[in-house]
Amino acid sequence: MDLHGLNIIAGERTHAEGQTIRAFNPSLGEHLEPPFHEATSEQIDRALQSAAHAFQQYRHKSPEEIASLLEKIAEQIDILGDELIDRTASETGLPHERLRGERARAVNQLRMFAGVVKEGSWVEACIDRAQPERKPLPKPDVRRMLIPIGPVVVFGASNFPFAFSVAGGDTASALAAGNPVVVKAHPAHPGTSEMVARAVAQAIDQCDMPAGLFSLLHGTSHEVSLALVRHPLTRAVGFTGSLKAGRALFDAAAKRQEPIPVYAEMGSVNPVFVLPGAMNERGETFAEGLQQSVTLGVGQFCTSPGLVVGLADAGMNRFIEKINELMRTSRPATMLYPGIRQTYEDGIRRLESVSGVRVERSDSMPDAAKTEGHPAVLTTDAETFLKNPQLGEEVFGPSTVIVSCQSRRDFEEVARSLQGHLTATIHGTPDDLREYKDFIPMLEDKVGRLIFNGFPTGVEVCAAMHHGGPYPATTDSRSTSVGTAAIKRFARPICYQNFPQEALPVELRDDNRRGIWRTIDNHWTKDDR
Amino acid sequence: MDLHGLNIIAGERTHAEGQTIRAFNPSLGEHLEPPFHEATSEQIDRALQSAAHAFQQYRHKSPEEIASLLEKIAEQIDILGDELIDRTASETGLPHERLRGERARAVNQLRMFAGVVKEGSWVEACIDRAQPERKPLPKPDVRRMLIPIGPVVVFGASNFPFAFSVAGGDTASALAAGNPVVVKAHPAHPGTSEMVARAVAQAIDQCDMPAGLFSLLHGTSHEVSLALVRHPLTRAVGFTGSLKAGRALFDAAAKRQEPIPVYAEMGSVNPVFVLPGAMNERGETFAEGLQQSVTLGVGQFCTSPGLVVGLADAGMNRFIEKINELMRTSRPATMLYPGIRQTYEDGIRRLESVSGVRVERSDSMPDAAKTEGHPAVLTTDAETFLKNPQLGEEVFGPSTVIVSCQSRRDFEEVARSLQGHLTATIHGTPDDLREYKDFIPMLEDKVGRLIFNGFPTGVEVCAAMHHGGPYPATTDSRSTSVGTAAIKRFARPICYQNFPQEALPVELRDDNRRGIWRTIDNHWTKDDR
Repeated sequence: MDLHGLNIIAGERTHAEGQTIRAFNPSLGEHLEPPFHEATSEQIDRALQSAAHAFQQYRHKSPEEIASLLEKIAEQIDILGDELIDRTASETGLPHERLRGERARAVNQLRMFAGVVKEGSWVEACIDRAQPERKPLPKPDVRRMLIPIGPVVVFGASNFPFAFSVAGGDTASALAAGNPVVVKAHPAHPGTSEMVARAVAQAIDQCDMPAGLFSLLHGTSHEVSLALVRHPLTRAVGFTGSLKAGRALFDAAAKRQEPIPVYAEMGSVNPVFVLPGAMNERGETFAEGLQQSVTLGVGQFCTSPGLVVGLADAGMNRFIEKINELMRTSRPATMLYPGIRQTYEDGIRRLESVSGVRVERSDSMPDAAKTEGHPAVLTTDAETFLKNPQLGEEVFGPSTVIVSCQSRRDFEEVARSLQGHLTATIHGTPDDLREYKDFIPMLEDKVGRLIFNGFPTGVEVCAAMHHGGPYPATTDSRSTSVGTAAIKRFARPICYQNFPQEALPVELRDDNRRGIWRTIDNHWTKDDR
Repeated sequence: MDLHGLNIIAGERTHAEGQTIRAFNPSLGEHLEPPFHEATSEQIDRALQSAAHAFQQYRHKSPEEIASLLEKIAEQIDILGDELIDRTASETGLPHERLRGERARAVNQLRMFAGVVKEGSWVEACIDRAQPERKPLPKPDVRRMLIPIGPVVVFGASNFPFAFSVAGGDTASALAAGNPVVVKAHPAHPGTSEMVARAVAQAIDQCDMPAGLFSLLHGTSHEVSLALVRHPLTRAVGFTGSLKAGRALFDAAAKRQEPIPVYAEMGSVNPVFVLPGAMNERGETFAEGLQQSVTLGVGQFCTSPGLVVGLADAGMNRFIEKINELMRTSRPATMLYPGIRQTYEDGIRRLESVSGVRVERSDSMPDAAKTEGHPAVLTTDAETFLKNPQLGEEVFGPSTVIVSCQSRRDFEEVARSLQGHLTATIHGTPDDLREYKDFIPMLEDKVGRLIFNGFPTGVEVCAAMHHGGPYPATTDSRSTSVGTAAIKRFARPICYQNFPQEALPVELRDDNRRGIWRTIDNHWTKDDR
């Protein structure tokens, strides 16, 4: 596929206007062809206008038609084959195998949402039947379901070029709910973005869907991002990235004349608490799992475990020795782009400059020309940790902070001092759990997901998953960006009172033609009325 | 009951500090005893600290204990008997009968939420079981449910001194979800607020619940309201009132270091669209129903129909004649307080000053000493309406605007021009509905509830109700402030991965001891695992 480097609005490539952006190969340290063109404000407006127009047709499409579109998008992405993987590898430095796995996850996600839409129960149909005889007043017939909201702006993430990008979870769930999507490509992988966007446009065309359903815009400047959020036709925003960028989008959305929801997932430190029984029983095995989790994808995951807390004892000492040894032998590896590597190195320097923190780094020196990140483990005590809040802030990359606590009180104080995170993990034996019974509720206050005897990386895409958490992990702790529940972010309830059957949406008619789960008079059922 | 006029923090009355506020009898035009004391910043902080402290105990209470508390609060409010109704009537000018009905609604609401909590399925328990054999990676065991969020600040509304006030829907749903509540009393009925607050505190005491679960603060200044929203321990806000006040709270919450959700229901014009068949068949009966709905509670409802749109024809003319006649004979009645009456009169004057608007008012002159509102009907054409956006803005009180459209295109243009509202109503015959099939989706974009051949006033409190709508009707169109779904506003999901049974919340264990509805591997069931 010859990349054209142009913005794609409603299936059409635009003219070459605007500033140019160059992709960069972090492994080779060189720029890639072709240049990409930053979206102009006229193009941003046109993309949203097209989306709003398409919405008026798309919202009337049947679940089967929407599901077919999602499946067709998956198919078209698969058809891109190794050409896509090669381009993405050159733009991100991520290994081919990882990228094949991530693409499989992204297309599975599209197919999973196709399944959700076909099955149909996600609309939460709820029916309260009339009671015309009720005294003192008759009860009306009231029926509620979720409906789509309109154009959704999705910001591609750098660290998941497929699964959280052009046709990733945000786009899949927004389209599944019945909304058009305007994607802002992440400037770190514009070629990947164009290839996937062209696959999406192709699928839309083949499914005879309105072309305005999808647009792809490029941009590096804040102005492009803010203009997308501020556009009056934008109804919601999906974002995965840094706290600073996510908060800026949230602030812009809150200041609109008509505020809109921003679902920003802004990362997390993902603390791991190792209870003393587990530490003594299997501290060294835990160190091996931890090293793998910390260095997975060069630590470039929102769920990378950046903090480990344990009680100072012989087991803890053995664990620290082991993790130090493992990190010393960890290999430096290419990070996504020079800016991320720089931020990582600055972060480590910031942490190691704190008095009372000891740093151990990989014995192999990283090659800056290959944008390599240098694995690191930092060790400190609870007192130092509690006095220096920066030790509890995310450093995006292959590092983790180990906190050794002199007492149970310190251990709990560290937990209490945390801000919001996506996950927290507990390692413990059955005895530990009994002993630390009151500790779990303390963590529930802080996170969206609790993991037992495992690692936070590797987020299962399923119905029960919750990938979210209190601020600053996300801007909306009610929402998840992974799993089927993500579809609910881009819908809102509407209710119909005393409507005649033929004027009701199919999902709310007496006859349950779609065979979906509904609550009728407070009872879940697939029955008719 | 002797009113003390003091703030009530965690069951204790505070010292008499702060500015004083006087209640006012709008029917008699005179101030009432005793003076009430505006909360100081120290008191606001203490109320939230107590709430946060109480939360750590309350969240561990069983559903049965929480349900008993809600029932006990209902019982204690009922025990206040006519003394409460008398005080509220004197503070609001609302008739005794209406107040008895509203109190019945408020206590029913408390009992309904007790039922929701006892039944237990509201937590949306969702279980994806492990597949240890799955390739390439085993699937973990993932289980999700809703948990409470912490202290909720509730602002009492002036127009519903029971149902949307101290122990109204916001408080009931927040307590039901497992959260402590700090109420800011509406300054128009501080005595009512104190009486109900003392009933709540009594119930908390009798149920052996933590006293900090509930506090009542008085205040008229913006500072008190903003300090409550800005307090770092506040986790969410419930509000019913004006757009200006609701937006100010929303803005303050969005600017916090850690933003929190504000569920502000800020009123609505509740447009009514009368299709031509219905207008010709029963325009005069419709006029009678409309007059009742517009003047119900002196028009002081969020769902009062403030806009009626029809097609100019003989039927429309007969309707306009009839509604003018009915409004001329409507009696002025006492509004809640002088400020509301003044705003209403200013609003009518603003509308009638628009060239092309004709106003018809009640023949009986209102008595300003009795704070009486003067019923009004304003008639105009589509062209005037579309040119003057203020005609589509809420005027809170017993008035409505009738728009006569020369063409179907104008009729649809009026619908398209609307901003977000709580409700829209369609009157039509079966033929009308067939003819105007594409009209309903146009309204779905604008509102949270669609009513057919009825009136928007009289909101049923049930599971399927949605009392919300796009901005500026509310700050969060995903939420409802009426009905059992209101409980979801004050909860967030959390998920547990590979947790041992004994460390899981009861609702997520294999054994479905509580007999709640859960989704297990995408199937709704009450079965075990």
